[in-house]
Amino acid sequence: MDGQVRYEDNNMNIFAWIYLPSREKEALIQGVQPHHVTFAQDLAKSEKKSAFLHADIVFGNLPAAWLFDTSCLKCLQLESVGFGEYQAVPSIPELKITNLRGLFFIPVAETVVGGILSIYRGLNTLVHLKEAKQWQKDTLRASNRTLHGSRVIIVGGGSIGGTINERLQVFGAHTSVMDTYSPEADITTIKVPNQQLPDADIVIASLPETPETTGFFDQQRLTLLSPNCVFVNVGRGSTMDEASLIRKLRSNEIAGSVLDVTQEEPLPDDHLLWTCPNVILTQHTAGGSQHELLANVNLFLTNLKRFQGGQSLENIVNLKRGY
Amino acid sequence: MDGQVRYEDNNMNIFAWIYLPSREKEALIQGVQPHHVTFAQDLAKSEKKSAFLHADIVFGNLPAAWLFDTSCLKCLQLESVGFGEYQAVPSIPELKITNLRGLFFIPVAETVVGGILSIYRGLNTLVHLKEAKQWQKDTLRASNRTLHGSRVIIVGGGSIGGTINERLQVFGAHTSVMDTYSPEADITTIKVPNQQLPDADIVIASLPETPETTGFFDQQRLTLLSPNCVFVNVGRGSTMDEASLIRKLRSNEIAGSVLDVTQEEPLPDDHLLWTCPNVILTQHTAGGSQHELLANVNLFLTNLKRFQGGQSLENIVNLKRGY
Repeated sequence: MDGQVRYEDNNMNIFAWIYLPSREKEALIQGVQPHHVTFAQDLAKSEKKSAFLHADIVFGNLPAAWLFDTSCLKCLQLESVGFGEYQAVPSIPELKITNLRGLFFIPVAETVVGGILSIYRGLNTLVHLKEAKQWQKDTLRASNRTLHGSRVIIVGGGSIGGTINERLQVFGAHTSVMDTYSPEADITTIKVPNQQLPDADIVIASLPETPETTGFFDQQRLTLLSPNCVFVNVGRGSTMDEASLIRKLRSNEIAGSVLDVTQEEPLPDDHLLWTCPNVILTQHTAGGSQHELLANVNLFLTNLKRFQGGQSLENIVNLKRGY
Repeated sequence: MDGQVRYEDNNMNIFAWIYLPSREKEALIQGVQPHHVTFAQDLAKSEKKSAFLHADIVFGNLPAAWLFDTSCLKCLQLESVGFGEYQAVPSIPELKITNLRGLFFIPVAETVVGGILSIYRGLNTLVHLKEAKQWQKDTLRASNRTLHGSRVIIVGGGSIGGTINERLQVFGAHTSVMDTYSPEADITTIKVPNQQLPDADIVIASLPETPETTGFFDQQRLTLLSPNCVFVNVGRGSTMDEASLIRKLRSNEIAGSVLDVTQEEPLPDDHLLWTCPNVILTQHTAGGSQHELLANVNLFLTNLKRFQGGQSLENIVNLKRGY
């Protein structure tokens, strides 16, 4: 390509779109040597597109439309698990796209169990009682629920659903995992739970965004949930009918909800979820941890080494399939 | 005793000091037949002591001083696990005292794991952010911690400590259980953790009230905790130096605390804990659940049957030993 700068024949241009604090930035610079990495965060807005067009390898979720303009790009390491925004990009034969699958299942499972326990054990109520200096021991004790003996349906049995399942089982919950593709699922479709939904104490949606999953928890399915049910979504906001869920929460037709994902992120100031009762909004933080960015950098470096060695990359995604 | 009413020779007077809602009250009345049960909640204040003095069996934590005046009492089924207030009562040869040991370990473990996860995964912060309609995804993700890989010391390896241990291990926490008497403890004393306390991410006190445990977490031991440490107490408030803990929390010398027990309960309005930062006050609700009172009644009925059959009772306590 015109204007493309090559440092040496064997060296590649790496373009980091992901924002990295100094510790993680330094780890990436050191780790990619002798290759050179250009950071979008160090460039003026007008310089970024040009830097991208010179890149052999990109790290981060840059604008999907830019991919229509590239011809030399060989690898795109996303900074997420989901990649719905890239599904419209035409297939580029030489380009391998990889995601962060497998990096988040441990922290996500912890936020899910913590969120459910916050509702079951009254911990969210206790935050407000502390502010009001109100002692309500007896009332709270009598309303506390236990994971032990609860009936849980996990829809989506990937690494996140499977890890949640493992943790809930040690608490003595009775779990069913539904998944169309996972050989470890209890039920090998996501379509049948309609008969089982009314009996569930907890329903956990852990679905990727695909044509099959979009709108999966529609008004009809949500209506099947019992007034005791806690509904959790750690997959994609697009898999549920948010307006129906909000109506059910407002009218106490379900017991509560833990939402890590929403259709719009960040939530706008006037969104109904901010003031919706009995919902824990975890603001897409479930996958986060203090070591998250360093883990991302390490996966990028692993894939860089594999690419140079001619080995197959970890976490190659299938754009068409959606996960 | 003078004035004692006997219904039939084989029948016993049962006095329920425990407060029971109608469903559980009915279950007790039906379950004790043909014996008769008198409920303190149905009596005028002036009638209660007299009813107690006629009782063969008492269910509930009545004033400890009353036990100095009884001679016909055969069984006292407490409505708690702890019984520090009864340790000054002189030994009554015929009297068997039983507690609720074993009824609470499942719900307590759930509140403990939920409380720790609320701090580790930012869930308590998210309650406030929802009220303020503030989206702080990136900041929160970077501060989230994981139970996975954390180092946990559990001091007190009874059924509660053991159940907490089992749950934390499935999350990938590295746990050590310290207990003087439990054969399953990793370290068979509660006295040695001083060397290990500075390295602990989480310290969980699950101790009964005994001369050995009173003030166990004194200023010196609390000073050993690291600024990263989360301190949990689900045993007795008397096992920790509350003033020192509050000072450490206020000055960010430890990361946070989950307290189910305090030295004074209910907490008075002007208590410093109400306004202390980074503390989750669960108000002695950790043992509670929707099925709690029915489980208490069932244990009472089991012990009543065993007493009539001449069998040894479940959960007999050793007043002197303290558990």
